[in-house]
Amino acid sequence: MTYACDACGATYADDTLIWRCARCGGTIDLPVVPFGADDVDTGEAGVWRYARALPDVPGRDRIALGEVMTPLAPMPVGGAGLRLKVDFLFPSGSYKDRGSTVMLSRLRMLGATDVFDDSSGNAGASIAAYAAAGGLSCSILTPASASPAKLAQIEAYRAQLVKIDGDRAAVAQAAIERAEQATYASHVYQPLFIAGCATAGFEIWEQLGRRAPDSVTVAVGYGSQLLGLRRAFKGLLISGAIGRLPRLYAAQSASYPALQDAWARGADDVEPIVLGTSVAEGISCRMPARGRALLASLRESGGGAVTVTDAEIGVALRDLASAGYFVEPTAAASYAAYGKLAGSGVLRDGDVHVVVLSGSGLKAGAAVAGLIREAR
Amino acid sequence: MTYACDACGATYADDTLIWRCARCGGTIDLPVVPFGADDVDTGEAGVWRYARALPDVPGRDRIALGEVMTPLAPMPVGGAGLRLKVDFLFPSGSYKDRGSTVMLSRLRMLGATDVFDDSSGNAGASIAAYAAAGGLSCSILTPASASPAKLAQIEAYRAQLVKIDGDRAAVAQAAIERAEQATYASHVYQPLFIAGCATAGFEIWEQLGRRAPDSVTVAVGYGSQLLGLRRAFKGLLISGAIGRLPRLYAAQSASYPALQDAWARGADDVEPIVLGTSVAEGISCRMPARGRALLASLRESGGGAVTVTDAEIGVALRDLASAGYFVEPTAAASYAAYGKLAGSGVLRDGDVHVVVLSGSGLKAGAAVAGLIREAR
Repeated sequence: MTYACDACGATYADDTLIWRCARCGGTIDLPVVPFGADDVDTGEAGVWRYARALPDVPGRDRIALGEVMTPLAPMPVGGAGLRLKVDFLFPSGSYKDRGSTVMLSRLRMLGATDVFDDSSGNAGASIAAYAAAGGLSCSILTPASASPAKLAQIEAYRAQLVKIDGDRAAVAQAAIERAEQATYASHVYQPLFIAGCATAGFEIWEQLGRRAPDSVTVAVGYGSQLLGLRRAFKGLLISGAIGRLPRLYAAQSASYPALQDAWARGADDVEPIVLGTSVAEGISCRMPARGRALLASLRESGGGAVTVTDAEIGVALRDLASAGYFVEPTAAASYAAYGKLAGSGVLRDGDVHVVVLSGSGLKAGAAVAGLIREAR
Repeated sequence: MTYACDACGATYADDTLIWRCARCGGTIDLPVVPFGADDVDTGEAGVWRYARALPDVPGRDRIALGEVMTPLAPMPVGGAGLRLKVDFLFPSGSYKDRGSTVMLSRLRMLGATDVFDDSSGNAGASIAAYAAAGGLSCSILTPASASPAKLAQIEAYRAQLVKIDGDRAAVAQAAIERAEQATYASHVYQPLFIAGCATAGFEIWEQLGRRAPDSVTVAVGYGSQLLGLRRAFKGLLISGAIGRLPRLYAAQSASYPALQDAWARGADDVEPIVLGTSVAEGISCRMPARGRALLASLRESGGGAVTVTDAEIGVALRDLASAGYFVEPTAAASYAAYGKLAGSGVLRDGDVHVVVLSGSGLKAGAAVAGLIREAR
């Protein structure tokens, strides 16, 4: 595999420790890998079943905490064809572990010993967990204002917290500067992370009896999960394992609708938008870095983007908990968006629809319970 | 299958809504079911793979949230043969979901519409989750003093919280009275719950290539997990699928050592003991109700019981998190006990040892992170 710059087309060998284009600063990407039934490593239980679609990491070099195939579970209400991908049943409590196991395994193999990321949420916790498991030094850059509760899990994994004065943009700038000394294990910029997230798509395909669903709805902040799904289903399509892409839908907060706005306008790239705050911290994202690829994911699959309000997220949290699923607000945003798509007839009852639940409600148990109370 | 009373031997048909002996008040049990490789339902991903060892519940009657086989994962330190059964990767965040899916499915099938349990911890949350999924009314009895944080998840699942003045014993008494009107879905008394917990043992056996480990260490409060493992491995032994039982070890808090004390004394039954408090709430149990069966589990397998202090639990929490596993204090007690057994030579390095991690650290994230900080 070779990295290619999304902007200028420059290429780089995939054994380079690199996170963006050295020439123009653009985002870089790995080519889609054709993947079919014969490529599954059935001796593995989860993420690493799809090693042939991942950057090469021999078994002994993998940093693994026992990732298994997460459930594709029924939802008693919401249509007979609705399935929930319960994608938070990972050691650190979110789907980000898919990206972390692949990214950190490969970076360590290439010689990284000291990694960092900028995230005070699920990505930070996940990268800290896998860095600990792999014996890597790890720093997590966060805004000085990040809540202590969110940082507790990250610190528990021995990661060093580096608090940066200023907003999220100041943290991002600090990350770019720090990348001169340590390895930037970015859940946004590293194509390795997205390659790991693709494994959710392969699992859905296997769990449906090696078929693609008609649609997948997923919450989008920086969009690693959406881009991962696109990568998986394109690989399956190229190999002939499926006949067409599932329609991919992005759920966004009404306060942070950068992707939805660009999609609705028919624009080629996203522009930063902030219209308020949101209880869904994982998608409180001013502007996703990979806007063009995200827009292409929606358009080439025939999907789209939907915004949801905090009130709609509260109702979705309530309805999911009433069915036995206790998730974080960001995860409920995808279910809220699905409800709108199904309610307006965009998604047909009877087809097979997947809603991805990205993070555990236990990450912020009291806050989630409070939102559910308010929605009753 | 037929229920049999552990004390007087009275038997009851297994389609009776019953939780203890109607004649003498003793605990009741289900017979061990021989189980071998041909009995696995390979079309199921987790708990229900072992339906042939469970009370009969046809597929359409199962209350399922997509339970999958939980990981049997490596631990970078602690011996080459050590494996962690990451048994909290369930929808409600603990292994109790094994018991809940089986117990509530069967109770609903027998006509229950209104269930209750007495637990302000993992069992309460799990039973509330599956009751919600199955459309059952659910009440959870708790001491009035139970912390609001622990109750938030239970309430989120629509369960009614019934606060009882007095200590845990007062709650237990209230439960016995309430059982006159509603179905007592007890994680302690219901043999159905233990039958569900047995599925962890079958998974370990499959994950080791259809072999038994040399030992399994598990935290014991009321002991549903230990009794479940005993049930599974005895079923495998009877069928000839394994040649001997793994040694079963109970990890107890030094403040609540009822089982360890009776085991060390060579007694036939346990007596209530409280020597202090413990950070491990799940095993802060004055006296397990099924003392004889628990003692038999340890003795017939050649295992034993070990107590651990809060300080030792803190160190275990730290060491597990340093390897990427963020668990609750009760789960760390099993790892602390394993460390003592391995350190003293009771468990030989090179053999295959399993330590069960029973609950997620996210259940009490800030408290767990605090204990880890103190242990550094």
